[in-house]
Amino acid sequence: MVERLKPEDRAAGLNDLPGWHMCEDREAISKSFKFHNFREAFAFMTQIALVAEKMNHHPEWFNVYRSVDITLSTHDVGGLSKLDLQLAADIDKIAGKMQ
Amino acid sequence: MVERLKPEDRAAGLNDLPGWHMCEDREAISKSFKFHNFREAFAFMTQIALVAEKMNHHPEWFNVYRSVDITLSTHDVGGLSKLDLQLAADIDKIAGKMQ
Repeated sequence: MVERLKPEDRAAGLNDLPGWHMCEDREAISKSFKFHNFREAFAFMTQIALVAEKMNHHPEWFNVYRSVDITLSTHDVGGLSKLDLQLAADIDKIAGKMQ
Repeated sequence: MVERLKPEDRAAGLNDLPGWHMCEDREAISKSFKFHNFREAFAFMTQIALVAEKMNHHPEWFNVYRSVDITLSTHDVGGLSKLDLQLAADIDKIAGKMQ
């Protein structure tokens, strides 16, 4: 059973995730990514989709051309869980390999 | 050279695209799709991505779990062009095959 993170664990987790920030209007974290073109942006999304499906934890995301804005939260706990930190780290790893 | 649609051509085009509507705040068209799960929603997006890349005309889209909200407009003309109507029709065809 996944649990909602305590504020101190959330802060510590975010510390290890450069570029991710808390959303203003809800307990969720967000980061924006930019690539050279749509092909690269969608390749990034495809890699995340496979990881997310395997984790059974999915992003909310918006894409237009070469930009991808990602928001993570855990619906079942009404906020952030360790799954969000884990998926954010995986996303950064994928982005890192594409640069 | 792609041109901005005249209002009458836009209206006629939208008439042939059930479920697509004009956005309130800009000259763009939008439609929301729902699937059984993320896997299906992302399979839908992947098929659209390939079509869009081939057309060199890309959607703006938001996905969360099994929902996909799509907005189409043509940046170069500051509004709608026949490319948007064509991509919308292709998207409906892809969605139709998935049901």
